[in-house]
Amino acid sequence: MSSKALDYENLNENVKKCQYAVRGELYLRASELQKEGKKIIFTNVGNPHALGQKPLTFPRQVIALCQAPFLLDDPNVGLVFPADAIARAKQFLGMTSGGLGAYSDSRGIPGVRKEVAEFIERRDGYPSDPELIFLTDGASKGVMQILNSIIRGPSDGILVPVPQYPLYSASIQLLGGSLVPYYLEETANWGLDINDLRQSVAQARYKGITVRAMVIINPGNPTGQCLSVANLKQIIQFCHQENLVLLGDEVYQQNIYQDERPFISARKVLLDMGLPLSKEVQLVSFHTVSKGYWGECGQRGGYFEMTNIPPKAVEEIYKVASISLSPNVPGQIFMGLMVNPPKPGDISYDQYVRESKGILESLRRRAHMMTDGFNSCRNVVCNFTEGAMYSFPQIRLPPRAIETANKLGKAPDVFYCLRLLEATGISTVPGSGFGQKEGVFHLRTTILPAEEDMPAIMENFKKFNDEFMEKYEDHKGYSRM
Amino acid sequence: MSSKALDYENLNENVKKCQYAVRGELYLRASELQKEGKKIIFTNVGNPHALGQKPLTFPRQVIALCQAPFLLDDPNVGLVFPADAIARAKQFLGMTSGGLGAYSDSRGIPGVRKEVAEFIERRDGYPSDPELIFLTDGASKGVMQILNSIIRGPSDGILVPVPQYPLYSASIQLLGGSLVPYYLEETANWGLDINDLRQSVAQARYKGITVRAMVIINPGNPTGQCLSVANLKQIIQFCHQENLVLLGDEVYQQNIYQDERPFISARKVLLDMGLPLSKEVQLVSFHTVSKGYWGECGQRGGYFEMTNIPPKAVEEIYKVASISLSPNVPGQIFMGLMVNPPKPGDISYDQYVRESKGILESLRRRAHMMTDGFNSCRNVVCNFTEGAMYSFPQIRLPPRAIETANKLGKAPDVFYCLRLLEATGISTVPGSGFGQKEGVFHLRTTILPAEEDMPAIMENFKKFNDEFMEKYEDHKGYSRM
Repeated sequence: MSSKALDYENLNENVKKCQYAVRGELYLRASELQKEGKKIIFTNVGNPHALGQKPLTFPRQVIALCQAPFLLDDPNVGLVFPADAIARAKQFLGMTSGGLGAYSDSRGIPGVRKEVAEFIERRDGYPSDPELIFLTDGASKGVMQILNSIIRGPSDGILVPVPQYPLYSASIQLLGGSLVPYYLEETANWGLDINDLRQSVAQARYKGITVRAMVIINPGNPTGQCLSVANLKQIIQFCHQENLVLLGDEVYQQNIYQDERPFISARKVLLDMGLPLSKEVQLVSFHTVSKGYWGECGQRGGYFEMTNIPPKAVEEIYKVASISLSPNVPGQIFMGLMVNPPKPGDISYDQYVRESKGILESLRRRAHMMTDGFNSCRNVVCNFTEGAMYSFPQIRLPPRAIETANKLGKAPDVFYCLRLLEATGISTVPGSGFGQKEGVFHLRTTILPAEEDMPAIMENFKKFNDEFMEKYEDHKGYSRM
Repeated sequence: MSSKALDYENLNENVKKCQYAVRGELYLRASELQKEGKKIIFTNVGNPHALGQKPLTFPRQVIALCQAPFLLDDPNVGLVFPADAIARAKQFLGMTSGGLGAYSDSRGIPGVRKEVAEFIERRDGYPSDPELIFLTDGASKGVMQILNSIIRGPSDGILVPVPQYPLYSASIQLLGGSLVPYYLEETANWGLDINDLRQSVAQARYKGITVRAMVIINPGNPTGQCLSVANLKQIIQFCHQENLVLLGDEVYQQNIYQDERPFISARKVLLDMGLPLSKEVQLVSFHTVSKGYWGECGQRGGYFEMTNIPPKAVEEIYKVASISLSPNVPGQIFMGLMVNPPKPGDISYDQYVRESKGILESLRRRAHMMTDGFNSCRNVVCNFTEGAMYSFPQIRLPPRAIETANKLGKAPDVFYCLRLLEATGISTVPGSGFGQKEGVFHLRTTILPAEEDMPAIMENFKKFNDEFMEKYEDHKGYSRM
């Protein structure tokens, strides 16, 4: 029988081509080992609750009440839920017609979009229009919607930082566009050089590619750097000159682990720059409930906000959103709660602050523990995680390790990460999944393992790494300490 | 300044081309009127809770507890939740690592996929493999994933019934494929004629299109018919001969309003047919928590099950699913609850049965009220809604109404539906959004308005319709009764 529509040979080529390393070979092998009974530490994906982070109590109380509205009339409800959670649940239910079981408008519940707009205004100091905010099933879905609107074919290019979060490479491949890389400079703390950027665009143009958009990830994933205002200004000016839409992936804006460079949104910097840029540069900014101190990944809540996108284009994006009817409504409620949490004086305020501060401070300590741990290892160097949730150490693999990997038909960093997984149960993602300069190797790990487990994890890592290096190093060229 | 990447002119043409009438012109106008204070009855979309259907109690209790796991240790929890809901919540939480806040595997929680497989086995009498079941954010997202895997370009065709649910036309346009229509015959109760199907494929082939898949919607949307076993056998044989993947949209399988033709899954019919077909015909079946007596649209839960899809293709579909990390976890729990509801002897069983039977019986009565109501109107004929949630009456528009519409630049059925909306607040979808034969006009309405409101709605409809007909009819050619 001839091959069929859903046989591998006949699949959409873009589907076959795309790669998503975060759940690639390493993850699949880790899942196998877990099935076989090995204890696996999944640090391949920023999934805090899977590594033991507790959900914030107040939002879970509110969502539980929204899911069970009949409790609101139960005389005993006050025994298990605080009054402010009950009031907030009533408020949310009043924003819907039909509660959590009804499709909302395809852009999301108007009342929640209004709360998001008010949050953005408080954050940036400029008003925001709820009609230009679309709620999404997590930020990834929003990114894919926008890329789908932009990309018309292989001659449309999207500037993406390298190393990058592979959502971008995978989506661009899936949509049949071209990824135009710009390199972040590891020795300059993963900074971005506008001259390199210019060169990337020139090279792409030479190949017949029209660069149409530029992605920034701030704070960086996997690289953890926080962009400075000066850098953001350069980027915005560059987008203006080159007529690019700026896509601002700002999902880690709550995850900041140093005080020198607080998070500043691309939108604030753009509007601060004034006319003509503030009215001309197109910007789409993305946010999520999956990161921050919330970590509510499984709920799939997110939004994007559009700046300087003309109404006719917004309408088209709305139309496409409407095909999937609506983002999940509980995820929308989480977004409302995230942007409008308990206030001073509310019954749940102290608990909310205590819980979120606890998570954030612990993440900050873990960021240090991890960077210090990696830097204590032989042939490993690592920039400090200024923000986001990842550590991205460079692993200087000895030539013999590279040869061995080549013989096994594996990329050298994949080889290293597989060995690490088998030896320690630590499931990381090889740097090649994010892109790296030729001949340089990394891995990405989250900083999310529980704080009390961190010393043992770093010790196991060091033991594995140093033995690995010992095994593969050419001792003639190195002296052992 | 030259136009920018996210200006209308520069958008992806497939984005601009696609149409989704369910939330199209009529819906937008209805939303405007609602903002202006008019009472709107949204029957444009199968959204039961928005029209007052109450959620089933037990699943909401379970999900509330899963969202608030700290309640499981609360000594007062038994005062507001029954013991079987508490036990079920614990069981679900035990299936996750990290509860509802953690990404699951991109195919969904293994334990829930196992429950789905067991449900399918009970329903069809054949075992089902959880590894071939992927949970999705509602059925629509699953359909789009599968179409995305199949469609390589404009010469790939997908057979779609006309009238059809516009998810199919919109997704095929968005993905750059070709829709190949096959017509359902209104006078034969929306039946399907295999000879017409053959002709559709031949015509497509003549135009250079390779037909690769065939969509069936059973029970039908918008047409409401239930496919007979004989019809399903013909379809499967046809798919075998023509080497097509059969896409079985079976989201309304719980919504059956007659006893002559119960729902039978395409999978059961296929496996009943035995070798070689049972091992050769590729089938993907879709289901959801949004329909049935659940109507949990806002939760966005669904699944697809693959039959005879080779492992390498399944892997590719898994890879693409992994780019969006995971379907929302609460929606997965709803799916687990739907396929494995309370059993006889459970504390909540009686209530669950009472609630679901109440909804289903009321829907059956409403199906009759609506069909009878439409058939009592001048120039309106309507097949009985055997299943699903819609009524799709044919509106025989007088020539002068068609002329007036043409003068206003509106399709005649859009013109009629807009007038209906302005006069009565009833928000329907014109038949042209689903496809209909040239010169024949319909509208789609859900049968979902509350039963007690139904007589008034049908009366308002009749009053509007009969006056409309009166106004536009050429009295020379008609006699008034």
